[in-house]
Amino acid sequence: MKSRLLLLLLVCSVFSAHAQDSLVMRRIADTVLLHSPCYSNLRVLCKTIGKRISGSPQAAQAVIWGEKTMKQTGADKVWLQPVDVPHWVRGKEKLRLKYGNSVYHDVTMLSLGNSYGTNGKVIEAQVVMVHDQDELNALPAGAVKGKIVFFNYRFRQDIINTFEGYGDAVKIRGSAATWAGQKGAVGAIIRSISTGEDDVPHTGAIRKDSVNKIPSIAVGNLTADKMEQEYVKGKIMATIQSDCKMMPEPVRSYNVIGEILGSEHPEQVIVVGGHLDSWDVGEGANDDGSGCVQSMEVLRAFKALGIHPKHTIRAVLFMNEENGMKGGLAYGDTAKAQNEQHILAIETDAGGFSPRGLGLEMTEAKKENIRSFAPLFLPYGVYDFSQSEGGTDISPLAKMNVPLIGLLPDPQRYFDLHHTNNDVFENVNHRELKLGATILTQIIYLVDEHGL
Amino acid sequence: MKSRLLLLLLVCSVFSAHAQDSLVMRRIADTVLLHSPCYSNLRVLCKTIGKRISGSPQAAQAVIWGEKTMKQTGADKVWLQPVDVPHWVRGKEKLRLKYGNSVYHDVTMLSLGNSYGTNGKVIEAQVVMVHDQDELNALPAGAVKGKIVFFNYRFRQDIINTFEGYGDAVKIRGSAATWAGQKGAVGAIIRSISTGEDDVPHTGAIRKDSVNKIPSIAVGNLTADKMEQEYVKGKIMATIQSDCKMMPEPVRSYNVIGEILGSEHPEQVIVVGGHLDSWDVGEGANDDGSGCVQSMEVLRAFKALGIHPKHTIRAVLFMNEENGMKGGLAYGDTAKAQNEQHILAIETDAGGFSPRGLGLEMTEAKKENIRSFAPLFLPYGVYDFSQSEGGTDISPLAKMNVPLIGLLPDPQRYFDLHHTNNDVFENVNHRELKLGATILTQIIYLVDEHGL
Repeated sequence: MKSRLLLLLLVCSVFSAHAQDSLVMRRIADTVLLHSPCYSNLRVLCKTIGKRISGSPQAAQAVIWGEKTMKQTGADKVWLQPVDVPHWVRGKEKLRLKYGNSVYHDVTMLSLGNSYGTNGKVIEAQVVMVHDQDELNALPAGAVKGKIVFFNYRFRQDIINTFEGYGDAVKIRGSAATWAGQKGAVGAIIRSISTGEDDVPHTGAIRKDSVNKIPSIAVGNLTADKMEQEYVKGKIMATIQSDCKMMPEPVRSYNVIGEILGSEHPEQVIVVGGHLDSWDVGEGANDDGSGCVQSMEVLRAFKALGIHPKHTIRAVLFMNEENGMKGGLAYGDTAKAQNEQHILAIETDAGGFSPRGLGLEMTEAKKENIRSFAPLFLPYGVYDFSQSEGGTDISPLAKMNVPLIGLLPDPQRYFDLHHTNNDVFENVNHRELKLGATILTQIIYLVDEHGL
Repeated sequence: MKSRLLLLLLVCSVFSAHAQDSLVMRRIADTVLLHSPCYSNLRVLCKTIGKRISGSPQAAQAVIWGEKTMKQTGADKVWLQPVDVPHWVRGKEKLRLKYGNSVYHDVTMLSLGNSYGTNGKVIEAQVVMVHDQDELNALPAGAVKGKIVFFNYRFRQDIINTFEGYGDAVKIRGSAATWAGQKGAVGAIIRSISTGEDDVPHTGAIRKDSVNKIPSIAVGNLTADKMEQEYVKGKIMATIQSDCKMMPEPVRSYNVIGEILGSEHPEQVIVVGGHLDSWDVGEGANDDGSGCVQSMEVLRAFKALGIHPKHTIRAVLFMNEENGMKGGLAYGDTAKAQNEQHILAIETDAGGFSPRGLGLEMTEAKKENIRSFAPLFLPYGVYDFSQSEGGTDISPLAKMNVPLIGLLPDPQRYFDLHHTNNDVFENVNHRELKLGATILTQIIYLVDEHGL
């Protein structure tokens, strides 16, 4: 009888704990959906600063904006963490193509990030098309020497989760110049890593070990389609002229950090972050202005609701995710040097779209703890706890055994926009953005309350 | 031993049936995501015809387009089903407001659909603000006589599922003119039924029993905010001039229907449809060009994959969903008169966004049958089988005990765009649209194969 009573009490307490959690989660949703400034903050970042590649004057302005906006959340403490970042500059760039006996015409293009330029010269060469590295390697020795290799690899539209499709295709972007350069090519062109049914070129980083320092360029899907059609008909010639260069000296920049001090375990940190830098195109709206304003919203929501977290809750706007990861590395190094105890790190860097899940990069036991919260998230449209994605900027913390979570928004639109001139404020929806911020605040509340 | 063997065989056959289903569902996804013309079909509908209110020349063009496009799916049979539809015409319309001692200024507005106009006259009257019918009823007798009532009811942004928020707010739209007219008002203005943080007005139908024939107008959220602020400061005056009118005679129009004949039960029909008419603003892209091209894609996908359905699969582009539902009624009446046997009806009229669920309006036993397929849909991001929405155009079939399904896409963006000039092709994403068509084809395949 006594054990039954105990069981009943246990069931009741579990039930009421969940009922209490559910109520707080609802209050969090209310304050974010009705009162959050995160969408208007994103408008300011995108429209008054805009694109902000590491080392640029705009990136420096973004740090000032970030510090000011972080303070407006009501954070107990806001500071800048120094980071020395690479400064890559695009300059002028031009790709011209000539199909068979036609004349040269300009093509919409973007050099890939960190790419080498042509030092003021115009390179002219024949184009050799391959689909991937295997096809390149199968060519006879010398086949691409002095030529420009066109890697015509399509983003696999049949893969439902576009992040998997991206993972499949992106190795071409990183290595095209390396592979082509090793064979004596003078340039590399890739079909953009893009789901877009359009001619929008997508930039993005190349590997730093690219040999022979040849220029590396992306063209949009429609230009790639045209090149594919023309290639079977006759010779394609190309000229490349590009001022792209990596500046010789790194630039001093900063991670922007704010925190609410924990009431019971101030030495234990739950961190959430996005990255403040963007590529030098568009406005870095989905990648990753959204993640920045969402991370700051977590602090504002805690403060607005008067929730005093047990652990320290920290928001970080990381610098230089796109072409160096120096901010993530600096944060991790500092955490290690200062022997900081992180109980959870969360990254939001997959676009400001409707949230659908949380990627869990942690031990199975901790995954089960997080999954026990799953029913509480269903009313908010979050159901997928099966993936294991943390994030780039928080990945150094994984080496210190910190459990990682990545916010997983709907992935369908991201790779139409990613690293393009179309990644602008207008392509972020206010409700989707705020729902993402809601989920981040809710999961942090739950882990703060119940541990992990 | 024998029973164990039987059990094993049963388990194996269930497993292999699901494995087989899973494979066919994957083939469906592949053909839709890689080869569907539905996105380019939508572009043609939106960009060459555009808005197409029932009874308009554009609606007639859309019928011709629909018939031609339906034939291109490879359907065994395509026909037009006559429907007589109302023809409401907006004409010129103008709302001017004057706050306190300032001067009149034009305001961005849209008359609500089916609204009465002012017959060439200019109405000038003072504005009385209320939030809802209760507040109106609480006013002293005669308080709104000769005045214009402004219904300032906000779309509840705290409700996660915007279709619930819409259900909450839309009764104001339908009845504002009726309620105000009954009290002697000369006009009604509503805050648009809109999640948009903008000044975009949203049209939409008013109830047909609107008494006193007063004009009924929607303003955007920003104008409504301004009116709310100014109302507490001093008198608001308004002038309304509007040519809106319902034409005296109905117009002959059509539902466009195509079908693949069932190989085993041709007399048993599974129907899927969207509506071909739109409001007379924007391009009717999400509402509901998307549903039309998705429904036709179901037929194309079956044909392209060489799947010979057991039951007849029918796609319907319904006419006049927006302001009369005459197409849905005609389809239901014909089905009844011809004693047609429908085993399932599916509607897609909630925007061309990422699919998340299927609403089930059917007996509990049949719901359980559909829910047994749920694990098969998870790889496609569809997890929600808890809602019970069918759809407007298929609702007459419910009276004949036909089970109904409504496709449930992500609802966050819809009510920013719904019934506005922003409901254009550019606000539909190709992958999201195709994923919706994939899910429709998959559920129809499963029900055709296993029954319901």
